[in-house]
Amino acid sequence: MSLLVVGSVAFDTVTTPFGHADEVLGGSATYFSVAASYFTPVSLVAVVGEDFPAKHIEFLKSRNISTEGLETVSGKTFRWKGEYGFDLNQAKTLETHLNVFQNFHPRLPESYKEAEVVFLANIDPELQLDVLKQVKSPALVVCDTMNYWIEGKYDALVHTLKSVDIMVINDGEARELAKEANLVKAAQKILSFGPRSVVIKRGEYGVIAFGRDGAFAAPAYPLESVYDPTGAGDTFAGGFLGYLVSTRNFSDASIRKAIIMGSVMASFNVEAFSLNRLKSLEYSEIEGRFMEFRRLTHFEDLS
Amino acid sequence: MSLLVVGSVAFDTVTTPFGHADEVLGGSATYFSVAASYFTPVSLVAVVGEDFPAKHIEFLKSRNISTEGLETVSGKTFRWKGEYGFDLNQAKTLETHLNVFQNFHPRLPESYKEAEVVFLANIDPELQLDVLKQVKSPALVVCDTMNYWIEGKYDALVHTLKSVDIMVINDGEARELAKEANLVKAAQKILSFGPRSVVIKRGEYGVIAFGRDGAFAAPAYPLESVYDPTGAGDTFAGGFLGYLVSTRNFSDASIRKAIIMGSVMASFNVEAFSLNRLKSLEYSEIEGRFMEFRRLTHFEDLS
Repeated sequence: MSLLVVGSVAFDTVTTPFGHADEVLGGSATYFSVAASYFTPVSLVAVVGEDFPAKHIEFLKSRNISTEGLETVSGKTFRWKGEYGFDLNQAKTLETHLNVFQNFHPRLPESYKEAEVVFLANIDPELQLDVLKQVKSPALVVCDTMNYWIEGKYDALVHTLKSVDIMVINDGEARELAKEANLVKAAQKILSFGPRSVVIKRGEYGVIAFGRDGAFAAPAYPLESVYDPTGAGDTFAGGFLGYLVSTRNFSDASIRKAIIMGSVMASFNVEAFSLNRLKSLEYSEIEGRFMEFRRLTHFEDLS
Repeated sequence: MSLLVVGSVAFDTVTTPFGHADEVLGGSATYFSVAASYFTPVSLVAVVGEDFPAKHIEFLKSRNISTEGLETVSGKTFRWKGEYGFDLNQAKTLETHLNVFQNFHPRLPESYKEAEVVFLANIDPELQLDVLKQVKSPALVVCDTMNYWIEGKYDALVHTLKSVDIMVINDGEARELAKEANLVKAAQKILSFGPRSVVIKRGEYGVIAFGRDGAFAAPAYPLESVYDPTGAGDTFAGGFLGYLVSTRNFSDASIRKAIIMGSVMASFNVEAFSLNRLKSLEYSEIEGRFMEFRRLTHFEDLS
């Protein structure tokens, strides 16, 4: 199956209590693509400026990511600057420069229009729908969003959700989108907008998903050293959807395993700045950590 | 096996966004005892004033809880007044009146000194040790604490922990006790004080336990209606230890099931004010929710 992602490719400048990284490769579509590429080929739709170095494009290609849909236009690449305190759950945004992203109107290459699975990363919900309309007959549509669009484009977001099968969202944003403090009720409200599943990301507390078959909760992997949480949510989505596509099976049991695989990939990503840990990852490490998630969560039945 | 608990029996006045309860039965030892009583007999050590009604003592006795160690002295029973906002994770204490608890120096009845398992609820760590010394040869000692003792009696608490097998503690308090922001490192520090396991309570995010056999994470049960989180931690401890004692098996596998049973009992407790939900609980409901925790957390292996 073919997996398409539309989102941002960016330069990030990040400070955490454990270090600093300056103008490193980042962006939602980048983290997603690289994580998903461990399981399936990926078609990337995004835009960069003329300052985007060829070495980054070569890296993406080396990961079996199609960059045919990565436009280069005149101007500067999207830049984000943020910092984290000891509570690594919440980034403080210091600067956002949309640059070339501001006038981004993605036109899919012909070959991308046959994509079977689509991930609409956190961008303007009108753009999400615009991209989706260019895909002929997607079998599965997954989207993310953020408080900026919930607050600024609520109606457009709810409209886009009618065409979405699975929504991936932060817990605070799920409550905001649903206008409901209780997370179970918030999830039910989001399901009433269209998706058949909602996967709620809770940072260091892991993930809880709600769907027709009930709820599934997965902890985050307990790590001694978290250096940089930037991109953890998109890496989760990439591991989740990349694995799901590779199984060619969208059943509840398969979605549960995919949620664990997303958690596995996110747990690696936060161990280093930018995509550095994902760059050096071996598939045997991924399988090993999946097994550790079983040891972390499973228990025997009452005898 | 026999299970002994020392802690508080109190009157609570509680306000949550969903209602109000005035001078209702509460206290750490009360919640613990009632939750544990679904699995094993309990010996209660606490103190109340002359204002404590006979009907509450009759209720405890009806739950197979020995009140031989429940002293009645002249004066008023311990009172706590608190409130919760929509974020039900954190109580705001409005008033604490120790009353008869202030001069509490528990002397165990002879029959209690043979107890095999001891729970030292959240009281002065010097009192915890004093009670423990009166028990002849406990097979398992479990304790709780709170920020008040971490800040006011740090050395006494660390001294008490030398005699403790399992510590049950909130996540914020674990970080404070260990003086370490990272929870994995905080757990390791606490284990270095003496316990072989530390069970860290994370409110609506569930529990994560660390021991010699690695980590175990359990989510909280996702509830649509949480009315009153008062006593959730002590109810968790009661379900955890009551079930563990009933299995007569302190292996890692048994501890995992006991952590789920504690989570089951806590999930019922928060569905109503005071001990109202625990009072009406059927064992079949407990077994049913245990099964639901398996559906909530389990996933298949990679094929």
